[in-house]
Amino acid sequence: MKVDFWFTEFQNEDVKFGVRTRSHLFSKESKYQKIDIFDTEFYGRVMVLDGCFMVTEKDEFMYQEMLSHPAMVSHPNPKDVLIIGGGDGGVAREVLKYPVKTVDLVEIDEEVIAAAKAYLPGLSSSFKDGRVKVYNMDAFEFVDTNRKYDVILVDSTDPIGFAASLFSDVFYMKAHDLLDESGIIATQSGSPFMNPDFIKKAYRGLKGHFKTVRPYLSFVPTYPSGMWSYVMATDGKLEKQRKFSGRYMNEEIYGASSSLPEFIKKILEE
Amino acid sequence: MKVDFWFTEFQNEDVKFGVRTRSHLFSKESKYQKIDIFDTEFYGRVMVLDGCFMVTEKDEFMYQEMLSHPAMVSHPNPKDVLIIGGGDGGVAREVLKYPVKTVDLVEIDEEVIAAAKAYLPGLSSSFKDGRVKVYNMDAFEFVDTNRKYDVILVDSTDPIGFAASLFSDVFYMKAHDLLDESGIIATQSGSPFMNPDFIKKAYRGLKGHFKTVRPYLSFVPTYPSGMWSYVMATDGKLEKQRKFSGRYMNEEIYGASSSLPEFIKKILEE
Repeated sequence: MKVDFWFTEFQNEDVKFGVRTRSHLFSKESKYQKIDIFDTEFYGRVMVLDGCFMVTEKDEFMYQEMLSHPAMVSHPNPKDVLIIGGGDGGVAREVLKYPVKTVDLVEIDEEVIAAAKAYLPGLSSSFKDGRVKVYNMDAFEFVDTNRKYDVILVDSTDPIGFAASLFSDVFYMKAHDLLDESGIIATQSGSPFMNPDFIKKAYRGLKGHFKTVRPYLSFVPTYPSGMWSYVMATDGKLEKQRKFSGRYMNEEIYGASSSLPEFIKKILEE
Repeated sequence: MKVDFWFTEFQNEDVKFGVRTRSHLFSKESKYQKIDIFDTEFYGRVMVLDGCFMVTEKDEFMYQEMLSHPAMVSHPNPKDVLIIGGGDGGVAREVLKYPVKTVDLVEIDEEVIAAAKAYLPGLSSSFKDGRVKVYNMDAFEFVDTNRKYDVILVDSTDPIGFAASLFSDVFYMKAHDLLDESGIIATQSGSPFMNPDFIKKAYRGLKGHFKTVRPYLSFVPTYPSGMWSYVMATDGKLEKQRKFSGRYMNEEIYGASSSLPEFIKKILEE
């Protein structure tokens, strides 16, 4: 018998999305946020941070693939990759599908990684790969490093609270310094339908420091509105250098995802 | 003060989506279904049929535009249009943006039209246009007519209950007879993520009767998963004949919307 037991996210004050839950596997108040793992009927295991869906086993591939692959297939030779956030391991999993040399992952909250390792093996198995090096520190400080990267992927929470600095002008300036001319940065930038300010902020911020900036979209059913945006940027070219086909990404999606509905173009022109 | 008063749709047994409501403007059990109109905080006025979101003022443009315009811009000269369902008037509103001669709208439930006229003027104002002729009858019977159409748009509820016949092989055969070689049919085909069988049924059904069949997608935040599919078909060509730019649709969306994520391609190949 199914029990009337639900986890519900408030997508904003007036909209909520709920999933029927089998059990509450994990709950912890870390130094930074509340971490919960639920086992749900339809979406499988779900990681929730401060009451918001981060990943569900059923639809995480859409987000992880679309944050990672457009940048990875556009770089001429991606060897050294920096992941900002990404404590569930999903973005690292996608990046490791290429012959990379090093993957530095800067996740401020080590408890997120511990929870993912314990409950989300399909994502966190990437931490077992010797090329992945984890830094538990604020990414805003990490980017003062002298290291250079080919690709930077910003898999942060939304620009509210401790992740706000990761959408700031100074952060984009510092990220720019870590990349050479062919280097590419890609960031998630929220739902243009629910929070148009997030994509506007990322788009303008990156435009201030990179020659070519490309916003694009994917479906993610458990994120507010199901419409998710990303922005990638480089001083070089954004052209497909190699093929990649996953469960979401493929040859055609690469170009099609950057064809924006008219109302989003208007948001970016404002 | 906002009251804790919600309309919630069960997207399936295990997933629900709720919107905070200001007032319940209308409720009626018609011969075919339960019709409700709510005034909601975030989505504006909302029409609900048998507990499912049909249109909300805030996001209806995505669905109406994407059901209508890909077919309308692909036809060499769309003069006579048949709308199946569409009782809220939204698809007719989009079709009337072209220099059409006649729009026949076959909505089985006259109470849906009455409710839309009373509460959703932004959609139902299309019924005031002299070119729109309403037929309150079963579309499965209507398609036995001898009339010919240039474009047929199937804006039905999902293929469950009384709308099931509108996804049947016989229906597609009859629809084919109403179109000449350049004629185009487009149908909504549900969420490929939540109900992959709906798009499979529409795609295969249309393939049995038309030479060219093209599935495509759009975002619709208040529909289950936010990922919605459509299928269009013709014996002629599916090529853009004219430009149309709306709030969602534009030059690039025409082609980009038919680039399918890999998992949907797999669903259609099965």
